[in-house]
Amino acid sequence: MITPRTPSGVLELLPAEQIAFQRMLDAIRSGYERFGFLPIETPVFERSDVLLTKTGGETERQVYFVQSTGALEKSREADTSAEGPALPEMALRFDLTVPLARYVAEHEHQLTFPFRRYQMQRVYRGERPQRGRFREFYQCDVDIIGKDELSVRHDAECPAIIHAIFTDLAIGSFTIQVNNRKLLRGFYEDLGITDAEQQAAVLREVDKLDKRGPDHLRSTLTGAGFGLADEVVEQILAFVQVRSTGHDDALARLAEVERGSRGSASLAEGVAELREVLTLVRALGVPESDYCLNFSIARGLDYYTGTVYETTLDEHPQIGSICSGGRYDNLAGQYTRSRLPGVGISIGLSRLFWQLREAGLLEASTGESTVQALVPQVDAELLDDQLALASQLRHGGINTEAVLDGGKLGKQLRYADRAGIRFVAILGRQEVADGTVTLKDLRRQDQFTVPRTEVVSALRVELAQPQV
Amino acid sequence: MITPRTPSGVLELLPAEQIAFQRMLDAIRSGYERFGFLPIETPVFERSDVLLTKTGGETERQVYFVQSTGALEKSREADTSAEGPALPEMALRFDLTVPLARYVAEHEHQLTFPFRRYQMQRVYRGERPQRGRFREFYQCDVDIIGKDELSVRHDAECPAIIHAIFTDLAIGSFTIQVNNRKLLRGFYEDLGITDAEQQAAVLREVDKLDKRGPDHLRSTLTGAGFGLADEVVEQILAFVQVRSTGHDDALARLAEVERGSRGSASLAEGVAELREVLTLVRALGVPESDYCLNFSIARGLDYYTGTVYETTLDEHPQIGSICSGGRYDNLAGQYTRSRLPGVGISIGLSRLFWQLREAGLLEASTGESTVQALVPQVDAELLDDQLALASQLRHGGINTEAVLDGGKLGKQLRYADRAGIRFVAILGRQEVADGTVTLKDLRRQDQFTVPRTEVVSALRVELAQPQV
Repeated sequence: MITPRTPSGVLELLPAEQIAFQRMLDAIRSGYERFGFLPIETPVFERSDVLLTKTGGETERQVYFVQSTGALEKSREADTSAEGPALPEMALRFDLTVPLARYVAEHEHQLTFPFRRYQMQRVYRGERPQRGRFREFYQCDVDIIGKDELSVRHDAECPAIIHAIFTDLAIGSFTIQVNNRKLLRGFYEDLGITDAEQQAAVLREVDKLDKRGPDHLRSTLTGAGFGLADEVVEQILAFVQVRSTGHDDALARLAEVERGSRGSASLAEGVAELREVLTLVRALGVPESDYCLNFSIARGLDYYTGTVYETTLDEHPQIGSICSGGRYDNLAGQYTRSRLPGVGISIGLSRLFWQLREAGLLEASTGESTVQALVPQVDAELLDDQLALASQLRHGGINTEAVLDGGKLGKQLRYADRAGIRFVAILGRQEVADGTVTLKDLRRQDQFTVPRTEVVSALRVELAQPQV
Repeated sequence: MITPRTPSGVLELLPAEQIAFQRMLDAIRSGYERFGFLPIETPVFERSDVLLTKTGGETERQVYFVQSTGALEKSREADTSAEGPALPEMALRFDLTVPLARYVAEHEHQLTFPFRRYQMQRVYRGERPQRGRFREFYQCDVDIIGKDELSVRHDAECPAIIHAIFTDLAIGSFTIQVNNRKLLRGFYEDLGITDAEQQAAVLREVDKLDKRGPDHLRSTLTGAGFGLADEVVEQILAFVQVRSTGHDDALARLAEVERGSRGSASLAEGVAELREVLTLVRALGVPESDYCLNFSIARGLDYYTGTVYETTLDEHPQIGSICSGGRYDNLAGQYTRSRLPGVGISIGLSRLFWQLREAGLLEASTGESTVQALVPQVDAELLDDQLALASQLRHGGINTEAVLDGGKLGKQLRYADRAGIRFVAILGRQEVADGTVTLKDLRRQDQFTVPRTEVVSALRVELAQPQV
């Protein structure tokens, strides 16, 4: 006898939670589709030589390699040979960006650009298991890929998508924070920090501001390693603490930064892009309370080149960003000579779900089953009628479970209640004689009898009503 | 520069096909939910010791093992040690049955029985790549698991589910073929073939009947290896060619088999089960033209113990069974002492999709995009208005792409047409002045103008109409 257990570092859910998770996936997918994105799926594994072209040491250490039994035996023989061990032929994807790059480069001539794709699949990282860190987790990505060029206007779509989806998910108020890497670069250039590596080092220190506080940042940046002037550090501190408080305020902050510039072309470009993006975000109907400028956001330093986004829950800032992304110059330089600029965002749903559950924010959504009606077995003699009723409900689009094993009605009702099945459709001798069905609403503790011919429409009306 | 390419043996789809595939997945899921099944998902990998308890040599050779970089290095060191190589810690699931067994055994005390679950995920087999054989493919499984016992009535649900789903999928008329392993066993017992191994050997030969013909079967079974009497072989031949032609005919065939029995208890039990199952299948509203008895069906010899199912497309029998399954005595004997009988079916969607595509049966379903409306850029000055219109449509639940890059209207219309986007919602200067929108229906080659306030309801009406 083997003890059944899941590998560590995975999020396996019981059905009630799986339903809640699936509803979130559905809401995200429906949001992505509403904005005109097309679905793609890629294989869970890629060829190792294709997947690992770009990755640095850290990522490579976290990759899962895949070998069939035959390949495993072969590689073991090869390991003892003079050439030493080779990488296994295949590896699990560690994000959806590299597979997207491979997909777009491979199918380039069969795609229409701008290519608007969404992809919602699991990715794999060989991390050390720890609370809230997963080795397998869902990413829900959406990207717009241009060929040769992609107007910055597309950067305005991301906040609109984030707004639509997180409004639908109803997990509380949120703020979409926007910044621009060109503006950042220009700001530091203006301060005389022109070297890319030095900029990156400063940004890494700035990124620790929330954790270590301004005094620590001051002493680090003015210290031996950086040697920045006090005045420069104060300018940095003031800059990274900018959060706009409305649309006009955001435009005013941009004007202010522009006025303070010592002429960096990059800064001017960043300001112009942000101005256009914010204007179109408003045109797309995102309320100004839900987005702001945040000059501290940098995101992946070697990847994003223009607009960057983070999204935080206003009442749960400790959760961190729940949806991030940005603009990049070239998606697939390692696979094709075509220039493929793009912009996109990603929702790490497994981690978000886990955090919402930890914060107690999922209880309301885990109570309701996908099963909408139960047809109990009231009388074994009437089984055929009960099955016909179940069929009638199913044909009417109502998710229905029919009890086939019998037992006391009270027990069947308790089962429905515990399972989160809202309606019970009872067909006893009286109902068969009268041509009726008795409907019990377990949510509202209500009961009523309807003609058999009207049971579907009656249930549909009930199910369409908002639930208390 | 690395050539971007997928690993061999995977089915990667372009967006138009991915949409068709996703619609099939959605139809299957919706069918499973309509019958009151709950979703579960399990991790793509399982612990090797948990996954490989039951598997024989063939399956084990087809398993993909998974190792993180760290584990790979460690195992390479261990390989040269005295103990020799150990199995990698994890492996990709090769079906959804073993993960279901592990899931039910692991979470047994948190589940309600009968446990009705559906699961639609990809599985992995290290097969030699060949046409129509995949190393990664979707399985869409549904099972009902009892604790200690599960009434045979549940066996009637599977044909009803198959019927509902394949009617929805609209890939042509189909027949659900039903048999029972107890009846098979009893039939061979009655013929004096009582040894389980001999029965299995005969069934394997019978399984080749379609390919090799009755003469070959006759000579094999009467030959040295089997040594069956001519008369016995004729009885077998007559038996396995039974296909009922309607509900009453099916019951008559069962009565006939029962009359011919020399008293096997197993045969009597199989007949009684089939009788009950067929009766309930009819009560569940499956038309009698869509199911039949087929005494040649055996399925997995060491797994199924009662009712078994196969489903074939009437006009494409060469595709083979598109949905199969059956009843088993004990799901998870390797993980728990609890007895968990069950019944279920599986749809191998990747293979089915590939076969339908090969047979040219998918063309109709790959033309229509998920994007329902395009808002073209008619006039760059009106971009804000166009974005507001796109938002209005999206709020109305209409999947909408807004053109942000501009270009000639004719080119934008051609794009929509080629991409399978049915409606174009044009907002030019005239429309803005009049408070209207011009709607082009590219499918029907039709055009009409509606007040801006009514654009959502107008499109909804159009989209709800059946498409010619």
